Amino acid sequence: MRNILIFGGGGMVGQKLANSLADNPLQPGDRVKLCDLAFPQNGAPVAEQIVGTVTNPAVLKRLAATRPEIVYYLVAIVSGEAEENFDLGWQVNMAAFQSFIDIFRAEVIASQGTYKPKIIFTSSIAVFGAPFPEKIGDTFFHAPQTSYGAQKAMSELLLTDHIRKGFFDGVSIRLPTICVRPGKANKAASSFFSGIIREPLNGHEAILPVSDETRHWHASPRSAAGFLCHAATLDQSAYEARPALNMPGVSCTVAEQIEALREMCGAEVAARIRPEPDPRIQAIVKNWARDFDPARATALGFTAEKDFREIIQVYLDDDFDG
Amino acid sequence: MRNILIFGGGGMVGQKLANSLADNPLQPGDRVKLCDLAFPQNGAPVAEQIVGTVTNPAVLKRLAATRPEIVYYLVAIVSGEAEENFDLGWQVNMAAFQSFIDIFRAEVIASQGTYKPKIIFTSSIAVFGAPFPEKIGDTFFHAPQTSYGAQKAMSELLLTDHIRKGFFDGVSIRLPTICVRPGKANKAASSFFSGIIREPLNGHEAILPVSDETRHWHASPRSAAGFLCHAATLDQSAYEARPALNMPGVSCTVAEQIEALREMCGAEVAARIRPEPDPRIQAIVKNWARDFDPARATALGFTAEKDFREIIQVYLDDDFDG
Repeated sequence: MRNILIFGGGGMVGQKLANSLADNPLQPGDRVKLCDLAFPQNGAPVAEQIVGTVTNPAVLKRLAATRPEIVYYLVAIVSGEAEENFDLGWQVNMAAFQSFIDIFRAEVIASQGTYKPKIIFTSSIAVFGAPFPEKIGDTFFHAPQTSYGAQKAMSELLLTDHIRKGFFDGVSIRLPTICVRPGKANKAASSFFSGIIREPLNGHEAILPVSDETRHWHASPRSAAGFLCHAATLDQSAYEARPALNMPGVSCTVAEQIEALREMCGAEVAARIRPEPDPRIQAIVKNWARDFDPARATALGFTAEKDFREIIQVYLDDDFDG
Repeated sequence: MRNILIFGGGGMVGQKLANSLADNPLQPGDRVKLCDLAFPQNGAPVAEQIVGTVTNPAVLKRLAATRPEIVYYLVAIVSGEAEENFDLGWQVNMAAFQSFIDIFRAEVIASQGTYKPKIIFTSSIAVFGAPFPEKIGDTFFHAPQTSYGAQKAMSELLLTDHIRKGFFDGVSIRLPTICVRPGKANKAASSFFSGIIREPLNGHEAILPVSDETRHWHASPRSAAGFLCHAATLDQSAYEARPALNMPGVSCTVAEQIEALREMCGAEVAARIRPEPDPRIQAIVKNWARDFDPARATALGFTAEKDFREIIQVYLDDDFDG
């Protein structure tokens, strides 16, 4: 019987993961706890909820003392917000992660060899910055062009060195842009990739701030939860000395996204997308990765959707309420 | 008339740089200050010496307030020591660098647009970890296999994001292993690369802890000072969005190093090298880079020696006292 702790368990991916672990436990009897600033009010909680912030060392110490076998770390100030609020981004995305690592390492040392958690950290394809090769391979370098990407890349390096030194098991999972996000738009610069599908399906107008030739890398929320569950099942040796992986996904243009929406849901729905160029969003998105060859992750059994139609179908099946 | 400040100015590279700036000022009237824990006692100081440590925020604040136009940051716990003393490595190589960046950024903000220093940071080829391509190119990724390498890679990312946001100009210079280091052996795992040349030339036995088939990437102390001077002369736009560069150097095996020593200085000298395998050193060195294609740095005019004979000649010219 293991304890699984999800920092950021109140967020969209955290909730998908918690639901997945509730429906299909990794091992019989696994107990899941979620920690976040707040939790969604709709429906019954699927796991124990702890209200707290990773920026408070007392919260981290209290939870480290419970010695969870698996720790998911999903907390982040999203890309657009970290770009606007430079101090907040560094404080949460780097300083709090450093504090998390230090406090869990202290618990590991105090345990005298009886405690070694598996830490699964959600990184992002934002660790890569333009110019890119046609497809980004597993040994293309980090040259992030956002603070969010720099913070994710640094956090990966910090976690990896602690894994190398034997304090933790674990891996950094570089998520594609998660699409179609349910609920409301957020401050991620990538928010519109979901908005142009979700809003029209719900009868609302959606703003498209970039050219429809923009190509990007997507996976569904269901895939994101799947990546995180699968990562927990692999033996540490599977990652060799490089426990940071680009996840599989779907590479497509905005025009292809819109065409898939039109084919599946009709021209009337697709007509609710209104182009309104936003230079701030364009400046961020033009430096984002467009396509990947995620050979290592694929060989390790991580899977995502095959095309954008499938991504829309996952939204209709899992989240659409119409 | 500019102020140039060198953190780590008492170290070997810092002293070479200070001497170079004294002999050949970048601009007429440049004033150089050095900050370090201690300074060599031999000879007259070539620049103003400030005793202090970057782990003391008061020292950083006092020096930031002098608003030096060019800041060299050369401080580090070396690779072997950072591997043995995990906490000290993270404290000096990451936490103090973060503090340095934060304090200089605060000075920049306080200046209301009148102060923007150029920060030149000495990174290392230790940011790369095996397995490698035959030659490491300019877009090969960071997968450091030492804490020192992880700390350098993270510091690069931190500096680069601050440059991108307009707080500083600057660049990270990834030094090859500096060879032949004068003076005494240090705790760097790479120390023997210099020791096997320096000690025999000075009549002493030298220990070779690795196989003579070990291939590595070298440049002289004179080249290191040259890289750092040249970096200060380039316009920021030269670095484009990627202000972190692999420097040129000489790729050769230990056997080739020894053969060059034998040819130039005689079999009797080369015979003073005694193989004595050290598994700890071997474990670190086997994950180190062997060869590079430093295309970007070469195009920007950075230059190093052409072969290892030339590296030995630089030692004989600049540092040998026999």
